[in-house]
Amino acid sequence: MDTNTKILELINDKRLGKEHSSADIYWLINYLDKIPDFQLSAWLMAVCLQGLTQTETVELTRAMAFSGHVLTLQRHSECSLDGPIKRTRNRGFVDKHSTGGVGDKTSLVLSPLLAAIGFKVSKFSGRALGHTGGTVDKLEAIPGFRTNISMKQFETQIEDIGIALGAQTDEFAPADKRLYALRDKTGTVESIPLIAASVMSKKIAGGADHIILDVKVGKGAFMKNLRDAEKLARSMKEIGKALNLNVQVLLTNMDQPLGATVGNAIEVLEAISVLKGYKNFAAYSKKEPDGSFLRSQPRVHNVSDVESDFYKLCIELASTIADRKEVIAALESGEAYTKFIEFVRAQSDADAQLAAGIDQIGEDIDLVIAQANKPAHTLEVKAEQDGYISAIDAEKIGLAMHQLGYQVKVAGGYDIDNSAGLILHKKVGDKVLKDSLLSTLMAADESKLNSVQLLIQEAIQINQARPRLEKLVYKRI
Amino acid sequence: MDTNTKILELINDKRLGKEHSSADIYWLINYLDKIPDFQLSAWLMAVCLQGLTQTETVELTRAMAFSGHVLTLQRHSECSLDGPIKRTRNRGFVDKHSTGGVGDKTSLVLSPLLAAIGFKVSKFSGRALGHTGGTVDKLEAIPGFRTNISMKQFETQIEDIGIALGAQTDEFAPADKRLYALRDKTGTVESIPLIAASVMSKKIAGGADHIILDVKVGKGAFMKNLRDAEKLARSMKEIGKALNLNVQVLLTNMDQPLGATVGNAIEVLEAISVLKGYKNFAAYSKKEPDGSFLRSQPRVHNVSDVESDFYKLCIELASTIADRKEVIAALESGEAYTKFIEFVRAQSDADAQLAAGIDQIGEDIDLVIAQANKPAHTLEVKAEQDGYISAIDAEKIGLAMHQLGYQVKVAGGYDIDNSAGLILHKKVGDKVLKDSLLSTLMAADESKLNSVQLLIQEAIQINQARPRLEKLVYKRI
Repeated sequence: MDTNTKILELINDKRLGKEHSSADIYWLINYLDKIPDFQLSAWLMAVCLQGLTQTETVELTRAMAFSGHVLTLQRHSECSLDGPIKRTRNRGFVDKHSTGGVGDKTSLVLSPLLAAIGFKVSKFSGRALGHTGGTVDKLEAIPGFRTNISMKQFETQIEDIGIALGAQTDEFAPADKRLYALRDKTGTVESIPLIAASVMSKKIAGGADHIILDVKVGKGAFMKNLRDAEKLARSMKEIGKALNLNVQVLLTNMDQPLGATVGNAIEVLEAISVLKGYKNFAAYSKKEPDGSFLRSQPRVHNVSDVESDFYKLCIELASTIADRKEVIAALESGEAYTKFIEFVRAQSDADAQLAAGIDQIGEDIDLVIAQANKPAHTLEVKAEQDGYISAIDAEKIGLAMHQLGYQVKVAGGYDIDNSAGLILHKKVGDKVLKDSLLSTLMAADESKLNSVQLLIQEAIQINQARPRLEKLVYKRI
Repeated sequence: MDTNTKILELINDKRLGKEHSSADIYWLINYLDKIPDFQLSAWLMAVCLQGLTQTETVELTRAMAFSGHVLTLQRHSECSLDGPIKRTRNRGFVDKHSTGGVGDKTSLVLSPLLAAIGFKVSKFSGRALGHTGGTVDKLEAIPGFRTNISMKQFETQIEDIGIALGAQTDEFAPADKRLYALRDKTGTVESIPLIAASVMSKKIAGGADHIILDVKVGKGAFMKNLRDAEKLARSMKEIGKALNLNVQVLLTNMDQPLGATVGNAIEVLEAISVLKGYKNFAAYSKKEPDGSFLRSQPRVHNVSDVESDFYKLCIELASTIADRKEVIAALESGEAYTKFIEFVRAQSDADAQLAAGIDQIGEDIDLVIAQANKPAHTLEVKAEQDGYISAIDAEKIGLAMHQLGYQVKVAGGYDIDNSAGLILHKKVGDKVLKDSLLSTLMAADESKLNSVQLLIQEAIQINQARPRLEKLVYKRI
């Protein structure tokens, strides 16, 4: 059967709601290069409207995962692939993925934390998308840090120090890349099986045994309601089961931004605050005379303090595959922070750091990052009335951040202002008085600060009544 | 709003089952050239699965009809546009359309017949498609006949003799052409509103007041069941109502081929037999000593004879817009036949005919056609047992005809063997004895006759039990 006849058969089958065989799906992905966009998009729309069965979704995931390079890491087989993994010399390969949110820097904590307690962390991350930020952009705020390392260095690094984190490349799951680009242009993004297969195929190609998935729900997430988020979570969990992977999913709140910061450099500092043992960002950051908050703070341990939503989520996510006490101990003992330093050293370009006047990355890495990303300008947003913070619209904050720093127009394209960002001094439920400091905005360009100020003011709502607090973790799947 | 944003909005709306506004549909058709195939095919698939409302279908039909040239014929306004039209000097412009069948040569009779009784016949026809034949191919079996006449000649001819019949061109409803070509390649043909809009837009662009639609149902039709055919018919009727056109629809049987012949030249001869007053092809055709049936027969009138399904259908279709007695009288008086001769003379190339040794087209036009298309070889298919003909699979017969004559491979492409065809000496319900002559096959290429023989034998089924006869006309809408 020629390619044209076969793809027409698949399109018609899906239009009529029939189930594709495993062979059909492998054929589709193998011959993807030979199928024109206009036929592929008709198939994608039929999938959006008729759905895929769980069996089809698993086969599609597997076929996409094996459409390119697959990291053939030494497979871990010493433990059952279900829930918390006992401590052994090699606890297996882990990848943590978030469906995307605002202020979500958990990967920056989770990766060194899990590596510190014996997991091998092999992670490929993306850049800022839509209204959300990207792990790769955040890491690049660290002077000299390289996210485009070779596959050989990636594998060596995992073997030597148990952690490597790179930018997604075309080598992994190229079939997903082709389909994703087309979905974006043909109104076929919103299909739960297609989203599940897209996420999982990249994780599988990355060689993970354990996959921690943080499915965000709410105003600042791509999934706006719990029902769809749960469907997606269950689909990904089932894919994991079928492919013998340990998939742990939390459905978590993304109505307000996570933690106290949004922005590339400032989010790295908030991640470091947790790695240094701080339970909230206010305890770690102190306002400097010049209005900035970015200076190095010593490591602390066993501080009794209020746990921020960000701190809590890091613990919750790590505890899906490790013992909770062990996770907290790794933060408080400094092991996780040491692993972070080790990771940054291994993956940085020493020459570039020397050129930037940095001798050696050490305990004071936060000072290095803060100095390299010192914002030229800051602006304070204050409460216009007494009351309670009733909402902080994460999507609005995210969009403001894209305007402020993630996509700064320069001659010939876009640039990133890593110093741009904001600190939220208050979160939903906090009591405020008129003129209380709500947020500090930071950026290289003063005019941009003024232009987003109103957006931030609108995003932070104050109400007389004490608001009902949403759960941070809705559900574990 | 830019084109990309707008088309994405339309795709998403249709994916979610929302109704497009009239402005949306006009935008889509006006900007069709700017929309890439991969977005259009996603929209088409969404339409296939979510449907179009009747309002959307009407707007799409109108927009497509006006996407190119529209024949601005003198509008007829002397009668109500509903059902049979009283005899006046100008009864309006008529177009008859069949959704496609096997052995369906009714247009060749209807067009001169309706012109003879005062209608203006303005018709654009297609070529053989799938397993069906095409009116244009059949007409081209007439030596010197031209189907690619200029628009000027077309309009002049309608004014002078009341009839013109040309090949579909890109000038009419180009939007439909673009959509149809894409639907064919993306599994999005089978959508009732899209089929209805496609058919009706071309008829409207052709300037018709009255549209006679013959919707074929059964094994040899594109519509396999009565339910879908009725939906299509009602949709086209509603489009007509909305656009102030007289649309008359018959749902007719296409399980077995229509009439006694299939093939280009032989079908023209069967059409001529009806125009000459014969009620069945056997009475008109006589077996020659050389085995052929193609010679001229005189015109007859008022013969009492068995009416063939083909004869009956011509009367039924014409009677949807004219008085039945008047229709029969036009055949028996010779008026219809005279109009046919007039039409062929007007639309033929006299030089080409002279070159072919034809002086002047006259009463013996059937002899001219028979001689020009005399098959080099014939082959007889006989009954292998006693019994009743229980089925003649129209699709199988049609596919055999495509093999035999419609698409003959020649150096550099395909050619048509107009002499190729078959005569069915028996139809469903006829009693046969072993070795009764069932069919005579004719073609230029003897080896092809042998290769399709088995297919024809399989298509004609003989059973001991007398079969239940299906209605010829299922329903009038």
